[in-house]
Amino acid sequence: MRKILVVGLGLIGGSLAMALQGFEDFEVVGAVRSQATHDKARSKGAADRLTFHPADELPGADVVILCQDPAGIIDFLHEHRDRFKPGCLIWDVCGVKTAVMEAAKCLPETVDFIGCHPMAGKEVSGIDNAEAGLFRNTHFIVTPGPRATKEHLDLLRRMADWCKFGDVIETTPERHDEMIAYTSQLMHVIAVSVCDNDELFSCKGFEGGSFRDCTRVAALDPAMWTQLFTFNAPALAKVVGTLENRMRQYREAIEAGDQDALRAMLAQASDRKKQINLERARGDDVRPKF
Amino acid sequence: MRKILVVGLGLIGGSLAMALQGFEDFEVVGAVRSQATHDKARSKGAADRLTFHPADELPGADVVILCQDPAGIIDFLHEHRDRFKPGCLIWDVCGVKTAVMEAAKCLPETVDFIGCHPMAGKEVSGIDNAEAGLFRNTHFIVTPGPRATKEHLDLLRRMADWCKFGDVIETTPERHDEMIAYTSQLMHVIAVSVCDNDELFSCKGFEGGSFRDCTRVAALDPAMWTQLFTFNAPALAKVVGTLENRMRQYREAIEAGDQDALRAMLAQASDRKKQINLERARGDDVRPKF
Repeated sequence: MRKILVVGLGLIGGSLAMALQGFEDFEVVGAVRSQATHDKARSKGAADRLTFHPADELPGADVVILCQDPAGIIDFLHEHRDRFKPGCLIWDVCGVKTAVMEAAKCLPETVDFIGCHPMAGKEVSGIDNAEAGLFRNTHFIVTPGPRATKEHLDLLRRMADWCKFGDVIETTPERHDEMIAYTSQLMHVIAVSVCDNDELFSCKGFEGGSFRDCTRVAALDPAMWTQLFTFNAPALAKVVGTLENRMRQYREAIEAGDQDALRAMLAQASDRKKQINLERARGDDVRPKF
Repeated sequence: MRKILVVGLGLIGGSLAMALQGFEDFEVVGAVRSQATHDKARSKGAADRLTFHPADELPGADVVILCQDPAGIIDFLHEHRDRFKPGCLIWDVCGVKTAVMEAAKCLPETVDFIGCHPMAGKEVSGIDNAEAGLFRNTHFIVTPGPRATKEHLDLLRRMADWCKFGDVIETTPERHDEMIAYTSQLMHVIAVSVCDNDELFSCKGFEGGSFRDCTRVAALDPAMWTQLFTFNAPALAKVVGTLENRMRQYREAIEAGDQDALRAMLAQASDRKKQINLERARGDDVRPKF
């Protein structure tokens, strides 16, 4: 029997451990740090077996999935670089890829590290909220390094299939980080910035779907998102700046009462959004209602 | 039999006409302008009866619901001011209230105008997308003028109940416009501004739930939203400016690599969002998962 070691049973790690159970001939071992997480993971059957000592499992693990925060993943790679089983596949799940792929250069040539990013999540975290179905129809982004073998990429695709991901997107770490700054990190900067308005506590009764949707992800983990933003600072600062500029242009048109300019700007953006909706609806996207 | 005249069978008017059928002893008459809307409304049974001539219906209408865009509502009030049935209740559904309440001052004292705003919608518009269930568990905001009678307010509440609104929020037109600038109009400025990024067409495969949620409302009607933004320009410009400032502060902390500042800012916003979630979950809100 082969072995998958999932290090860190938070929302993503816990969900992966649950989703991967029964995959081929693998035993799924979950590594936890706290007794509380251990007990919760055991009670919901999050893994075939649990351990407090990932280092002891590494020599026998064929697949190691690192599900800590970015700094935790980088530390783990450095600390355990010589304990991984030769020929093993190591992958991570965090939201920045360049920094993690850079850190993985410390690994011996006998092992294969492939950066991954399951584009799944919830506005709540922890093993309490983990579920096997979390990845259904979401994107699984993969940033293989130059040493990635076809065998390991195939194994990764089979795992993604087993977990019911909608598709597997292969790209470079740099392109991933640039795209994710726009599609994910910027959405979090927006959500927290909207919540920083004094009216947040007095707007009850006036909020509709758009407000709930836009602020949904604001209840984030500050320590983890500080890391994600910091590891991707240049790309994120660029897209935040672009958005600031565009919002300033809208504000100036509104202040000036320039209805022609406003209508033209709104028509352009609305057309762009409709075009995206159409492209998605034409069938090659996993979520046609995007 | 009494008569409700719904003027304009778009998404909101069409849905109201559908939802109000069977309410007390009222016949629901829908006024349309185009043959296409007429035919679609008839085929889906959107009203008990349809007309191209709202002016002919006004003398016999006990309730008139104005469902055009803001300028259309204001024009209608001025054009038909002397045709309304004495004692009738007139209400509108548009997203700005001060401008509409101001326009309603042209009406004779024999009629009662109450500004309303059903906080319901979809990212698509028109009679095609109208449905009786659109208002379920949403807020129905009411801004009564000084002449509003208890009888009419009670009638309005019974209509809101019949349409399955979650609650009725009574406020002033000024307060409505200030709150809606933050909770709704700002969300639309954000959505269109995000779509104005060059990466919109290349980010496929990298978008998760937060991106879909934040940009959902960008496929808006440019002419209508130009009106809504223009009629509420000072309040909207203020909240856009506040958001720009906060985003600049986030960007500066990210650029400076100031992790302590970033963590403190994220912790504050995250706490605020969690507090709102808790308040909503304590039971007095119509959507506990907010």
